[in-house]
Amino acid sequence: MMDMPQTFRSRCYRILEGIHPPGVTGRVVDALLILLISANVIAAILETVESIYAAYGPSFDRFEIFSIAVFSIEYLVRVWVCVDDPERQDQTPLKARLRYIVSPLALIDLFAIAPVFLGLLFNVDLRWLRLFRLLRLFKLTRYWSGLNLLYRVMRDEAPTIGAALFILSIVMVLASGGIYLFENKAQPDAFGSLPEAMWWTVTTLTTVGYGDVVPVTPWSKAFGGLISLIGIGMIAFPAGILAAGFAEQVRRSQKLYRERVDEAMSEGPVTGEMVAELEEARTELGLSEDMASDIVRSEVARKDEDAYCPHCGGPLPRGDR
Amino acid sequence: MMDMPQTFRSRCYRILEGIHPPGVTGRVVDALLILLISANVIAAILETVESIYAAYGPSFDRFEIFSIAVFSIEYLVRVWVCVDDPERQDQTPLKARLRYIVSPLALIDLFAIAPVFLGLLFNVDLRWLRLFRLLRLFKLTRYWSGLNLLYRVMRDEAPTIGAALFILSIVMVLASGGIYLFENKAQPDAFGSLPEAMWWTVTTLTTVGYGDVVPVTPWSKAFGGLISLIGIGMIAFPAGILAAGFAEQVRRSQKLYRERVDEAMSEGPVTGEMVAELEEARTELGLSEDMASDIVRSEVARKDEDAYCPHCGGPLPRGDR
Amino acid sequence: MMDMPQTFRSRCYRILEGIHPPGVTGRVVDALLILLISANVIAAILETVESIYAAYGPSFDRFEIFSIAVFSIEYLVRVWVCVDDPERQDQTPLKARLRYIVSPLALIDLFAIAPVFLGLLFNVDLRWLRLFRLLRLFKLTRYWSGLNLLYRVMRDEAPTIGAALFILSIVMVLASGGIYLFENKAQPDAFGSLPEAMWWTVTTLTTVGYGDVVPVTPWSKAFGGLISLIGIGMIAFPAGILAAGFAEQVRRSQKLYRERVDEAMSEGPVTGEMVAELEEARTELGLSEDMASDIVRSEVARKDEDAYCPHCGGPLPRGDR
Amino acid sequence: MMDMPQTFRSRCYRILEGIHPPGVTGRVVDALLILLISANVIAAILETVESIYAAYGPSFDRFEIFSIAVFSIEYLVRVWVCVDDPERQDQTPLKARLRYIVSPLALIDLFAIAPVFLGLLFNVDLRWLRLFRLLRLFKLTRYWSGLNLLYRVMRDEAPTIGAALFILSIVMVLASGGIYLFENKAQPDAFGSLPEAMWWTVTTLTTVGYGDVVPVTPWSKAFGGLISLIGIGMIAFPAGILAAGFAEQVRRSQKLYRERVDEAMSEGPVTGEMVAELEEARTELGLSEDMASDIVRSEVARKDEDAYCPHCGGPLPRGDR
Repeated sequence: MMDMPQTFRSRCYRILEGIHPPGVTGRVVDALLILLISANVIAAILETVESIYAAYGPSFDRFEIFSIAVFSIEYLVRVWVCVDDPERQDQTPLKARLRYIVSPLALIDLFAIAPVFLGLLFNVDLRWLRLFRLLRLFKLTRYWSGLNLLYRVMRDEAPTIGAALFILSIVMVLASGGIYLFENKAQPDAFGSLPEAMWWTVTTLTTVGYGDVVPVTPWSKAFGGLISLIGIGMIAFPAGILAAGFAEQVRRSQKLYRERVDEAMSEGPVTGEMVAELEEARTELGLSEDMASDIVRSEVARKDEDAYCPHCGGPLPRGDR
Repeated sequence: MMDMPQTFRSRCYRILEGIHPPGVTGRVVDALLILLISANVIAAILETVESIYAAYGPSFDRFEIFSIAVFSIEYLVRVWVCVDDPERQDQTPLKARLRYIVSPLALIDLFAIAPVFLGLLFNVDLRWLRLFRLLRLFKLTRYWSGLNLLYRVMRDEAPTIGAALFILSIVMVLASGGIYLFENKAQPDAFGSLPEAMWWTVTTLTTVGYGDVVPVTPWSKAFGGLISLIGIGMIAFPAGILAAGFAEQVRRSQKLYRERVDEAMSEGPVTGEMVAELEEARTELGLSEDMASDIVRSEVARKDEDAYCPHCGGPLPRGDR
Repeated sequence: MMDMPQTFRSRCYRILEGIHPPGVTGRVVDALLILLISANVIAAILETVESIYAAYGPSFDRFEIFSIAVFSIEYLVRVWVCVDDPERQDQTPLKARLRYIVSPLALIDLFAIAPVFLGLLFNVDLRWLRLFRLLRLFKLTRYWSGLNLLYRVMRDEAPTIGAALFILSIVMVLASGGIYLFENKAQPDAFGSLPEAMWWTVTTLTTVGYGDVVPVTPWSKAFGGLISLIGIGMIAFPAGILAAGFAEQVRRSQKLYRERVDEAMSEGPVTGEMVAELEEARTELGLSEDMASDIVRSEVARKDEDAYCPHCGGPLPRGDR
Repeated sequence: MMDMPQTFRSRCYRILEGIHPPGVTGRVVDALLILLISANVIAAILETVESIYAAYGPSFDRFEIFSIAVFSIEYLVRVWVCVDDPERQDQTPLKARLRYIVSPLALIDLFAIAPVFLGLLFNVDLRWLRLFRLLRLFKLTRYWSGLNLLYRVMRDEAPTIGAALFILSIVMVLASGGIYLFENKAQPDAFGSLPEAMWWTVTTLTTVGYGDVVPVTPWSKAFGGLISLIGIGMIAFPAGILAAGFAEQVRRSQKLYRERVDEAMSEGPVTGEMVAELEEARTELGLSEDMASDIVRSEVARKDEDAYCPHCGGPLPRGDR
């Protein structure tokens, strides 16, 4: 964190992008933007109710224009200030801005406003425009630190979840084939073809069970019961995979946090800045305060007591910690 | 645990607040209160059945008056005796009582009786009063030690569960938008607006699947099947998060219990009091008897074998093992 | 395992109670009994279908008489031979038999035949007698080694599961109260009282969702959606608790198996009998063959390489293994 | 990997069986086969829709003939080249081919084409033939590396899952018996016999809840609510078992990968080939890149710091860390 001159642009950067620790202005701007995004999505939902839109249509339209204006300004300011990102210091301003524009968060911001401007140019169905506004919900991603952990678990477990989905699709195709054979004659309407039979299979395997299509002959009921039982496995597999994934991430986060603590302690007396950095690391890694303080406590204890033999002063082996 | 003079108030405190180990009177009072609370909730439920209330109305009313009397006395006695809490010894009686009154358990006790007295002052709908009596169920919280563990898991996993809920709400809004587009024309009644479409989405994503609203066109069935499959993930995520959370708490409880055992062992010969304290710690930490005895056994073994420096033969400190 | 004289009774004991390793006769007797129990339950189920009973009634009755005869003989033989149980060697025959009779497995065997004999003495409804025969399914418990693990997990997690059930019952009572308030006027039939409202709540919280009772007003739909979402938590909690419980049991089993392996290795050269005992321990502890061989391999490696410094021959510390 | 002469047959082997790292031709052939298999299954599904088959029947038939030709050639080529498998080098060509033919993957390939040839010989129902084509989906198993992990978890947890299924079947039989007693008189159609009652039980215990059969009397509703709650357990058990199983496999994979890394490091400077082998091991073991790099990093650190005897300073063996 180099000491950069506090130009207006860099102040904007610090306010919008939430340097740690965030100042009061940064918090207020964040809160207002979160509020505006939420209000936007709620408005887009409520507008589809005809009676509400008939009564408050003009207000909704004014609120939409106001929101578009704010989001457009926000987008432009973010593109303007992104060159103050310490990680982009070594890029030319143009390159830094182009790179920022194609970053995921910036694309989300763009998609939140682009449909409206496209709608002005071309003749787009109003209903589609309204639904595109629901995508503004993605703008909240920026403010949610817990998503990191979920993303890491999803990424690490992707091959296993893919294999579970492959098994699910095999089961779904075979179960549809089976129920098609069993019920085709009894209910030619609901089970007249494999795609139609798949509707029953998917609602059964996911244990949704609407009941709009139900097997009626004894044998297909027996087969349907079997598929329901297999459906339990289809839920248990992803739950088990994700459970192992989360447990692994917790272990990994604890290890990374321990390394950070070790590093901080090896640099001499602990300063306020280091505490703030550790706190930021803790939030990023998704560790609870209890876990973090346990780790700090145990590292302090280890450093004090365990590195040297208290009797002869010789270094002690550490085991596999 | 200082040796306080056994005044009547401190006796009441010991009986009501369940000092470990609880005496016979304490157990009996606890059992009677649990019975009364349970009977109260069952009565409040049964009273809403008209035929039952018509037949036994006066008995219900008498039971209610009796319960209110008991709960009011219980509340006043608890406020009176709370100054005997060893943790409040250093506060003035008034301050101790005011602090107790705003503690969660005391507020639950207050909410269990307050609506009735408010009902006497103002003209409150009888049905609301009856339903407020259901809140008396919370009075049982006091007697349930396993809740600690659930609370700790919930608190530690709150950010991750929050992120999962954020994803859930994104999925829900987008799925509602999708089904609204697909089914709006086919079923203008059930999918006439986004809020109405959300009813289908929530029953599908949670795999409840009442079947009162079901997609009927082929494309929306395909979309509905996709949403059902995503619904599996919406169940698997919290299950996985909580599984990792419980596993982490178990590990943490074992570590804390190990430290307690270490401490107890380092204080010389183990006394009956220490055993009682360890047993209390075990219950609080939510460890099973098997786990606890495993830990004690391994600590004893470690003390015997592992405690000497390989260099000079002197006893070693333990660190965070 | 003392070398007892092979009397007829002790031979019967070995055949029926499955001494490890079981002989051929023991396996055949086990298989025949499992077959008979399964056939009995299937017969009890099929008899309730009127058309089947009308056609094959006498055959069913003959099969029942035959089964009762076999199960009665089995029960008497088990009571007769139980004195050969090595663990009962120090009891008098009478005491050993009385103790055996009140053991859970013996009581299950008794309940499998007792209703029939009671039915001969008193005039019992035939339908009840038939359903009591379903309890014979419990006789299979004896042959299922994996149940140990499930039982241990259930026992260790009982307090936590109890707390989850307590929260579930609070949620259920409050949700019933809420939907009762919201829907009572719109659907006085389905939500006329709290017990009736509970039917909707339980089918929603467990995500069964029959759809026979569904909220219809907008506010109660919103409330119902909220309850559905909470229902996900009600499924995720037990799944998470059990996942942590199973993980803990696996860790514990591995530790116990490691101790057994250590013990076996410390007794000098490994004999065939020791291998058989380890194999039995493995099955009892519910470890997979991979896990067991991993443990054996690592213990052998540790014994050979790690106990002494290869350079100076001094004993090495072990860390926290 | 001996350096074998690049005959045409061995080239085919390398292309079809995907030697690591796969060449460009191998990747293209794999992609084309995956595409063809997927198109086949989709075609088999769409053909059952009468309107589609009426319109495009001949095209479907031509595509089927083309697919059969390709799959037959693929099968014959695989049988021809299998003798180039390094693991079959020591078998005579005939024996190698016979062994290959009865291997699971070859049998899947055979079942994908055999029904058609049988259909030419005998007069088989066209509908059955069509459904047999769905089994071609299994041909994709060959290309899915994540399935290994799922298979290992299933195999290791089989006894525990078997025990859970045993409990499930006991609960199902007893619940069917109970609801049969409660509802038999009120709904003689839906609950007229135990097998019919089982349909309700299975849809309730699996939380599918179609709602085609629902208890109507108060007592059977109370009983049904209880069964729904038990149904939560029936989902939570397999989820918990699989979660522990996946966690165990992750731990085991990390250990095996650590051993591989150790081995690689002990053989002197790391070569590109070793990196490729480690990468292959990582994919096979189902480890994420993060986990793998963590392990490599910690092993490197350990090698540097931890490898010397605290007594004499000599390098130490590693044991099972």
